[in-house]
Amino acid sequence: MQVEALIFDVFGTCVDWRTGVAREVAAATGAKGLEIDSVAFADAWRGLYEPAMQEIRSGRPYTDLDALHRENLDTTLGRFGIATHFNDEERAALNHAWEKLPPWPDVVPGLIRLKASRIIAPCSNGSIALMTRLARYGALPWDCILGAGIARAYKPDPRTYLAACDALRLEPAHVMMVAAHNDDLVAARDCGLKTAFVARPLEHGTGQVTDLKATSHWDIVAADFPALSAHLDLRSHD
Amino acid sequence: MQVEALIFDVFGTCVDWRTGVAREVAAATGAKGLEIDSVAFADAWRGLYEPAMQEIRSGRPYTDLDALHRENLDTTLGRFGIATHFNDEERAALNHAWEKLPPWPDVVPGLIRLKASRIIAPCSNGSIALMTRLARYGALPWDCILGAGIARAYKPDPRTYLAACDALRLEPAHVMMVAAHNDDLVAARDCGLKTAFVARPLEHGTGQVTDLKATSHWDIVAADFPALSAHLDLRSHD
Repeated sequence: MQVEALIFDVFGTCVDWRTGVAREVAAATGAKGLEIDSVAFADAWRGLYEPAMQEIRSGRPYTDLDALHRENLDTTLGRFGIATHFNDEERAALNHAWEKLPPWPDVVPGLIRLKASRIIAPCSNGSIALMTRLARYGALPWDCILGAGIARAYKPDPRTYLAACDALRLEPAHVMMVAAHNDDLVAARDCGLKTAFVARPLEHGTGQVTDLKATSHWDIVAADFPALSAHLDLRSHD
Repeated sequence: MQVEALIFDVFGTCVDWRTGVAREVAAATGAKGLEIDSVAFADAWRGLYEPAMQEIRSGRPYTDLDALHRENLDTTLGRFGIATHFNDEERAALNHAWEKLPPWPDVVPGLIRLKASRIIAPCSNGSIALMTRLARYGALPWDCILGAGIARAYKPDPRTYLAACDALRLEPAHVMMVAAHNDDLVAARDCGLKTAFVARPLEHGTGQVTDLKATSHWDIVAADFPALSAHLDLRSHD
């Protein structure tokens, strides 16, 4: 198994979006003396992500995730009954919450180790702008930024995975998709990529019921990123 | 002057393509017992770069620089009378010379300093694949890879500069183009970007006659990348 590049899902797989967004929401609402459940707000905001991308997949012209997040923020503020408390500028500022998400503790040391012998890049639905600022925030040592921003298509659209391979001038069989979401890996495997699953059982909090384990025979199933690196080192000697 | 991101020309500005390519050519021809002037070969190979890009600007469908370099290698091998000595696989290997170019000595320390407070990215005519591998070779600490690869257009086409700003979600006035080539900066300034000139008087060897100095009033003219960083730090306190 010759893997020359690893591409990564980011929200949930590399970073803890729920904790990060809730923290920013708590700061923004707290400063106004508003009392809301910031974790519930984060879940509601994120809950509008999939339906928004589905609109794009169904024919709406490609709109980057920053703009979709902003639309979804407006909706979520309304649902929580606090829309009148946030003007346009404040909403734009809060939308940057998605650029300030903490990496899971194993991610940076794991990526550094993986990068020593292979290209590493995000293959996220986030824009280049978002992924670039998120990388700076969390010290994610990417070699380049791939994903929806270069494909102008959202995962699991095959074009997103294939554009990442094309950009690196690599055959899909030499590229491994790493994700905490089984459906992401299904789509990547259908494009001919190698696959690695790393469970993130706290992505949705302690009550999480989805993606607690691998639901297919992925090429690698690893406990965390350093373990993924160790698996790859072993395999490369096969 | 609020500069949130710096984007860089790479061949000549960040890396010494002439020395790097000549070294790879010398190794490849030496291994076959061929005696050629490897620096002259590098100059001839590079000399076909501008005409090849001009074809694209004149209507040839976008073809990435790796493919153009390969076509130009075939031509150059013919001109040096050594075409029959290199099969397809060997030509493909030699084409990777463009991914193994030494940075000028000030570049890596300068980029590390600049990156501390601003986004840094290449805005080169090289592909994402080429720029990614070149960054790994030379430890260039880019935040992301911009340029022709995301614009599918070659500098000085305005789309290349504007696509870089768009990808970062920044107004051109908040992005600075850094180059050792005055014509690159003319085109960037026409798009509304800020400009910085850093002379590279040895890019074409000791007999260089072009771009030895700034030929316009660029926002910054600096001796090297650390000096550019110092200029920016001073200006940000204006």
